[in-house]
Amino acid sequence: MKTLDLNCDMGESYGAWHMGQDEAVLGYVSSANIACGFHAGDPVIMRRTVEAAARRGVAVGAHPSLPDLQGFGRRAMAIAPEEAYALTLYQTGALAAFARAAGARLHHVKPHGALYNMAAKDRALADAIAAAVRDFDGGLVLVGLAGSALVEAGRAAGLAVAREAFADRRYRADGSLTPRSEADAVIDDVAAAVEQALSIATRGEALAGDGARVVIEADTLCVHGDRADAATFARRLRAALEDAGVRIAAPERGA
Amino acid sequence: MKTLDLNCDMGESYGAWHMGQDEAVLGYVSSANIACGFHAGDPVIMRRTVEAAARRGVAVGAHPSLPDLQGFGRRAMAIAPEEAYALTLYQTGALAAFARAAGARLHHVKPHGALYNMAAKDRALADAIAAAVRDFDGGLVLVGLAGSALVEAGRAAGLAVAREAFADRRYRADGSLTPRSEADAVIDDVAAAVEQALSIATRGEALAGDGARVVIEADTLCVHGDRADAATFARRLRAALEDAGVRIAAPERGA
Amino acid sequence: MKTLDLNCDMGESYGAWHMGQDEAVLGYVSSANIACGFHAGDPVIMRRTVEAAARRGVAVGAHPSLPDLQGFGRRAMAIAPEEAYALTLYQTGALAAFARAAGARLHHVKPHGALYNMAAKDRALADAIAAAVRDFDGGLVLVGLAGSALVEAGRAAGLAVAREAFADRRYRADGSLTPRSEADAVIDDVAAAVEQALSIATRGEALAGDGARVVIEADTLCVHGDRADAATFARRLRAALEDAGVRIAAPERGA
Amino acid sequence: MKTLDLNCDMGESYGAWHMGQDEAVLGYVSSANIACGFHAGDPVIMRRTVEAAARRGVAVGAHPSLPDLQGFGRRAMAIAPEEAYALTLYQTGALAAFARAAGARLHHVKPHGALYNMAAKDRALADAIAAAVRDFDGGLVLVGLAGSALVEAGRAAGLAVAREAFADRRYRADGSLTPRSEADAVIDDVAAAVEQALSIATRGEALAGDGARVVIEADTLCVHGDRADAATFARRLRAALEDAGVRIAAPERGA
Repeated sequence: MKTLDLNCDMGESYGAWHMGQDEAVLGYVSSANIACGFHAGDPVIMRRTVEAAARRGVAVGAHPSLPDLQGFGRRAMAIAPEEAYALTLYQTGALAAFARAAGARLHHVKPHGALYNMAAKDRALADAIAAAVRDFDGGLVLVGLAGSALVEAGRAAGLAVAREAFADRRYRADGSLTPRSEADAVIDDVAAAVEQALSIATRGEALAGDGARVVIEADTLCVHGDRADAATFARRLRAALEDAGVRIAAPERGA
Repeated sequence: MKTLDLNCDMGESYGAWHMGQDEAVLGYVSSANIACGFHAGDPVIMRRTVEAAARRGVAVGAHPSLPDLQGFGRRAMAIAPEEAYALTLYQTGALAAFARAAGARLHHVKPHGALYNMAAKDRALADAIAAAVRDFDGGLVLVGLAGSALVEAGRAAGLAVAREAFADRRYRADGSLTPRSEADAVIDDVAAAVEQALSIATRGEALAGDGARVVIEADTLCVHGDRADAATFARRLRAALEDAGVRIAAPERGA
Repeated sequence: MKTLDLNCDMGESYGAWHMGQDEAVLGYVSSANIACGFHAGDPVIMRRTVEAAARRGVAVGAHPSLPDLQGFGRRAMAIAPEEAYALTLYQTGALAAFARAAGARLHHVKPHGALYNMAAKDRALADAIAAAVRDFDGGLVLVGLAGSALVEAGRAAGLAVAREAFADRRYRADGSLTPRSEADAVIDDVAAAVEQALSIATRGEALAGDGARVVIEADTLCVHGDRADAATFARRLRAALEDAGVRIAAPERGA
Repeated sequence: MKTLDLNCDMGESYGAWHMGQDEAVLGYVSSANIACGFHAGDPVIMRRTVEAAARRGVAVGAHPSLPDLQGFGRRAMAIAPEEAYALTLYQTGALAAFARAAGARLHHVKPHGALYNMAAKDRALADAIAAAVRDFDGGLVLVGLAGSALVEAGRAAGLAVAREAFADRRYRADGSLTPRSEADAVIDDVAAAVEQALSIATRGEALAGDGARVVIEADTLCVHGDRADAATFARRLRAALEDAGVRIAAPERGA
């Protein structure tokens, strides 16, 4: 029986500002990537989000970011590997403290936004991030874009890795994601996104924008929490996958 | 044989700005309270400072603060106990991650600046801080002003506590510190400060500004890292205490 | 003919986070207090908000705050008057730059949140804020709580002042506002709030919670932008005031 | 008689952290580029630095930066032109407010660090910065690297521009600066740097590392405030230039 993880970014409110539908989405996903204060999430919100995820039995993960609250961690920044190491370790430790206090155990780390994209291509940065995760806890799962430098770096560091794919992003023939600057980057239609998820989950492939078949080896599917219909989307995605015989569960931690 | 801890605030540089004489002071103290990014210290500096302390066998502690980089954590802020809990847990977890990566173990937590002063008087705040420390690791030592609400809160939470006294601050007859706004608040003369340290260490008392004897039960003495002569001061303090038969060592962690 | 200003806090989004119904509310108010980046508002949002207000002919004001994004400027902080002066000047200058670029002219300054409340009671702080406003532009209007130290400080500094009252906050017999910690602090019912506004505007008084008549001399009424019904509330308030013969307009700038 | 400006970055302390020798350097330079809070400088320090420069008759300039205190504005960030416009306007307005309160008038704007370097090559970014400066005050001087996109953008926007050259940076044959990653990037020897300054000031050329003559058309020379010998360096530079008949003065403001 095929097993797949459904993950969602969470805890992305900050102070007086609200974002996302965390409580509703928690009912359908198996992993939560929780903001650590650098792009979103303050300590009070981190605590609340970790506790909510733990209560629902959803795997608690750290979602470290570049230090850029104003840009929501989406602006690439020229940081040295030494800085990537240190900011990953800092944020992972901070999030893990809330997990520990909640009686849970940190399960995974998934870099956020620009850091995720930079680590997909820059192996030195990816190695630094993987080293920070391993130095904190060698049993953590490192989540990265399927086929990325981050996944390679995680494996090289001896970490369990989860290769991420997207139900609602359009793939290109070379396996990369259609950039958000292009018109058809996002699959808004829930039915079409569910269809792509099923294709990835059961046949290990997706249809590119030009109709080509793209091989996608994925361990986890991302549910975008910033969709207006995030909770509905997560519910239908999970139902369709389970109906197709896919078991939804977080990946196993490493040794 | 009397044992006393010598602690010093460290890692208070930030980005391009330098502060303190950490390397030199580390040769003489037994505990380092390391800034966690909220009043000073960025992730790269935290890593470097933790590694330097661990290398010297100095006990690694977290030095959490109010979120106030510009004010160096010295400006009182009206925060709720829930916020104090969360920011203590966040910073303690972040610092502990660097300790873990360095093969060390977090030893203690000492709140910084305005948070330390607020927690000395406000029991609800003190309880929140103590709860955060306990929820993270019940074996940690909580450092607070001797006779303060924070020490009481730490004991009530079942934590090991270290009562802090000052070699170079003038006490008042009631046991409180002469406020920094007054002329004789700080004992600039090293010999006089060493004298006060010896009096506290060996007789459990200090002379107040008006000549009164004040009982001071202390487990740890603070070496102010922002003295221009911090390293010299620490060296002479340690030498005088050891000559007087006092053993300099970090307090025992709790169970 | 009685003239009254309707003011509303605006531009309180930040980065990826949205807050308020600025566009809708701008149709009904005569003054906008625009966040300056310390409690909310980033440079891009400040520009957009200033331009929107200027386009509608709404008076553009600066809404400076304590430096506390996470606490939305609502947490009191122990700052020195020198710091209050400098942060008011900084934020006022920044906001005024957007006004100038938009072909508008800065009209007023209203401190935000905890700074507003602190300046209502602490005359030294109020004097520092008033001095910063005057040193920037002696023609600006300083907005403060009716009867507060800030209004006195503004007058003493030779500034035009606007005394602020609240349509939807319950007054106490001594003229102070019922604290938000109490149940009846906010008048949720629009009709009742409009009634209070009319009473203040036309009779210069409000009914306290205990039924006592309280004299309220007000030049401007605050429309809380964080009410879920902010736009409706502003529309009905304006309509009722105009029906009662009150002219809605921003106060005159000083000489 | 040849006229040249000597400029220096200033006000780069922050909160409790000190940097630079501003008071000493102010005695020798004609222009001060004052940090605006995004990479260094808080409101209190900005006020103090502006007042010190104004008192000495040194031209007061804004030194806007990317929002990166931890990285001292030296880490490139992927920002949109709209963001560059807004953050330049914000910081310029804030700094100008302190100038106005000090009875001075803002004279110039020089982007800092990574923003300066990005604007030297990216014309869209350079145009956005120039537009912000012009929209704030069309009479301001825009300072940019000689031969850069920023200088072109300033001219295109109708601004007076000052082309910057460096006494203590080694040029390459193509007129670009030897990157700091290379060994001979900085000319540490004061006599050699003074020699290069004289060559630029009187012959309009410098010798590249490989001995080639490079044409350098400069209106202003940068004195690096972060040299350990910054004040001595500035003093000797000014003396040598004046001895060679060069008049040291800030460039004229535009119309």
